[in-house]
Amino acid sequence: MSTTYALEHALVEGVVRDGVLVTVEDGVITDVVEDSTSSGAEVNPSGAQVGGLTIPGMANCHSHAFHRRLRGRTQAERGSFWTWREQMYRVADELTPDSYYSLAVEVYREMRASGITAVGEFHYLHHQSDGTPYDDPNEMGRALLAAADEADIRIRLLDTCYLAAGLDSQGRSREPEGVQRRFSDGDADAWAQRVEDFDDDRVGAAIHSVRAVPRDQMGTIAQWGKGKPLHAHLSEQVAENDECMSAYGLTPAQVLAEAGVLTELTSLVHATHLTPDDVALIGDAGAYACFCPTTERDLADGIGPSGDLRRAGAKLTLGSDSHAVIDLFEEMRAVEMHERLATQQRGHWSATELLAAATYDGHASLGFEDAGRIAVGQRADFVTIDLDTWRTRDTGGGAETAVFAATAADVSEVWHG
Amino acid sequence: MSTTYALEHALVEGVVRDGVLVTVEDGVITDVVEDSTSSGAEVNPSGAQVGGLTIPGMANCHSHAFHRRLRGRTQAERGSFWTWREQMYRVADELTPDSYYSLAVEVYREMRASGITAVGEFHYLHHQSDGTPYDDPNEMGRALLAAADEADIRIRLLDTCYLAAGLDSQGRSREPEGVQRRFSDGDADAWAQRVEDFDDDRVGAAIHSVRAVPRDQMGTIAQWGKGKPLHAHLSEQVAENDECMSAYGLTPAQVLAEAGVLTELTSLVHATHLTPDDVALIGDAGAYACFCPTTERDLADGIGPSGDLRRAGAKLTLGSDSHAVIDLFEEMRAVEMHERLATQQRGHWSATELLAAATYDGHASLGFEDAGRIAVGQRADFVTIDLDTWRTRDTGGGAETAVFAATAADVSEVWHG
Repeated sequence: MSTTYALEHALVEGVVRDGVLVTVEDGVITDVVEDSTSSGAEVNPSGAQVGGLTIPGMANCHSHAFHRRLRGRTQAERGSFWTWREQMYRVADELTPDSYYSLAVEVYREMRASGITAVGEFHYLHHQSDGTPYDDPNEMGRALLAAADEADIRIRLLDTCYLAAGLDSQGRSREPEGVQRRFSDGDADAWAQRVEDFDDDRVGAAIHSVRAVPRDQMGTIAQWGKGKPLHAHLSEQVAENDECMSAYGLTPAQVLAEAGVLTELTSLVHATHLTPDDVALIGDAGAYACFCPTTERDLADGIGPSGDLRRAGAKLTLGSDSHAVIDLFEEMRAVEMHERLATQQRGHWSATELLAAATYDGHASLGFEDAGRIAVGQRADFVTIDLDTWRTRDTGGGAETAVFAATAADVSEVWHG
Repeated sequence: MSTTYALEHALVEGVVRDGVLVTVEDGVITDVVEDSTSSGAEVNPSGAQVGGLTIPGMANCHSHAFHRRLRGRTQAERGSFWTWREQMYRVADELTPDSYYSLAVEVYREMRASGITAVGEFHYLHHQSDGTPYDDPNEMGRALLAAADEADIRIRLLDTCYLAAGLDSQGRSREPEGVQRRFSDGDADAWAQRVEDFDDDRVGAAIHSVRAVPRDQMGTIAQWGKGKPLHAHLSEQVAENDECMSAYGLTPAQVLAEAGVLTELTSLVHATHLTPDDVALIGDAGAYACFCPTTERDLADGIGPSGDLRRAGAKLTLGSDSHAVIDLFEEMRAVEMHERLATQQRGHWSATELLAAATYDGHASLGFEDAGRIAVGQRADFVTIDLDTWRTRDTGGGAETAVFAATAADVSEVWHG
């Protein structure tokens, strides 16, 4: 049983087309007819006539759902990333599987309403307060999967290995402290056993960072995650780079490369403070660089070299991370805006390139190759932007309207399968 | 005949209070009772019960209304501020009093809907295409005043002196070129005569910039504008500083200071590329620094020293300038976010300080001392933020919610008088 929708304007392979007929069967696109009006094709669809500009569902590739609770609160503080982290830890300390489920349902609903149809949840809040596993050691992770089901959003649960509080100058790791005990499985083998027992094909792997995972543990994670998405925070803060250099005589990117975890399935989250050699390593691997610019400005991380990474061969993806803002339109334009602030030149990223990051490159970095395009064989995940709001009206209606004029509040419909 | 409104939450003197009763008579606040619920005061208002968080109406201190037409269009281009300016000039070239009126009505309505109750329109599009004045030489300005009336927004028309295309290295000005002929009155005396003939007390003065007004002409403008708001673009681009230094051996701020136009009624728009001496000059004058961060990132201007300016004694105000975005909530937080990106530290501006910039300091910089506070004797201009949208829900409801969580789309009501 197929249904054909008539989309007034739709983004097809990077170009906005008028009068696009999309046929959907069992949640999958089976036919796309561009410019139906001028080609004389059938214009009486069996399904809805959809006004506005329809784009593929977007992928939010880096989420810590519980950080949403800090919005409007942490921003009152002076200080640094590190003082922010203390507040974030206080929230983490209080959560139970039930309360985390309830919180995550709301966060994922907010994502859905903003046009996000898939999320990569970077999940490290595994155990009870003193570090003891729950009866089911994956109870927290299952709460997040259930929340995603409840909110009707696709999820890749990036189960995150977090073993250490940091490194000393001899490269020895420091034991997890305080709430970090909730994060740690003890070693990578125990982490691998736990995620193996999870037995859910929505689970992917993550290495928290070079400060939280000793380098001799990384291979185990890469081995378990082979063929799956593997995500890792990279060089978000200068202090993290300094610690890594002091401990290993290597940059964080070099540590990951030497440990064999830089592949084309790897997503490097933030990638803010990189050397030119780091950029080349990441580009040569064809890895994803997951930028989270609204968080990176909120946390005073700095501006990463997004343009250099693309030119080196990396693929851009986007995440709302701490959820100070949940609006991938804002993330898209912030990548370009931050480059403009850093370089005093305009036009580093085209709207089409930024939409690729928010859609098919994003989905692919989560292991979802079947989403992010309006094309035959893809999932029927669509997001419609109202072109008659205060923000979008009279802005041309092209890809630039989506990237440089629209906000999450301008999403009128989200279609899912 | 007075009416009393019960505001669920309201920003009174920088603090969010619950259950605030505000009595209004002839559009002016005649009584404010804070925390009415706990004090046992009258809680059956004659007017509406207003849910959400109510703040004073906001002032948009720097607007070029016609730039709105570039939204979603100019962002497609690579290049610099200067290539953007070519596009902007093409729009400027086409406008007539009628078409500018229609465009401005929509722009001012968009402002109103976003919580802006007063606008400073930096107006230099005075004459016909070849530079000939209209029959009424103030016809374009009158079109803007009429547009503001139609949109029910208060306006300060900052009638802008623009005489030259730039300076050569001997400090000689170059004649206006192309569309710039629409801007120029020939000399400052002719400008002063025209604005004198305007005969409307909503008219204030502006000096376009050091590149467009030779320094020997500035005194005339300052003289006409004495006791009125006087605005000027300052050091938005490095090239403008270089040209000024080459022509005069002075920075733009030094030129303005020497010409006697730096006073506590002066607003310096952008103030991006300043020397420490410039910052001290501006601070010592107690002038306003009008930041337009969403434009400053869109145009790749850079990040101005907002914190240094405040510490030196300047007062911050905000403008949406090119209208790539019309959202003073975004402008407020962008000031802080840009400082974070530049310094890698958080907490330069508190939410209360940013709200002061968006409200009473902004209104005062436009010469409207009677607006921007919920206080006795002030105009009854209120903006209510819905605290139950995806963005604002569960964010504390304090000043930080307004600054760090809300957007223009979360404004539920705008009250005017």
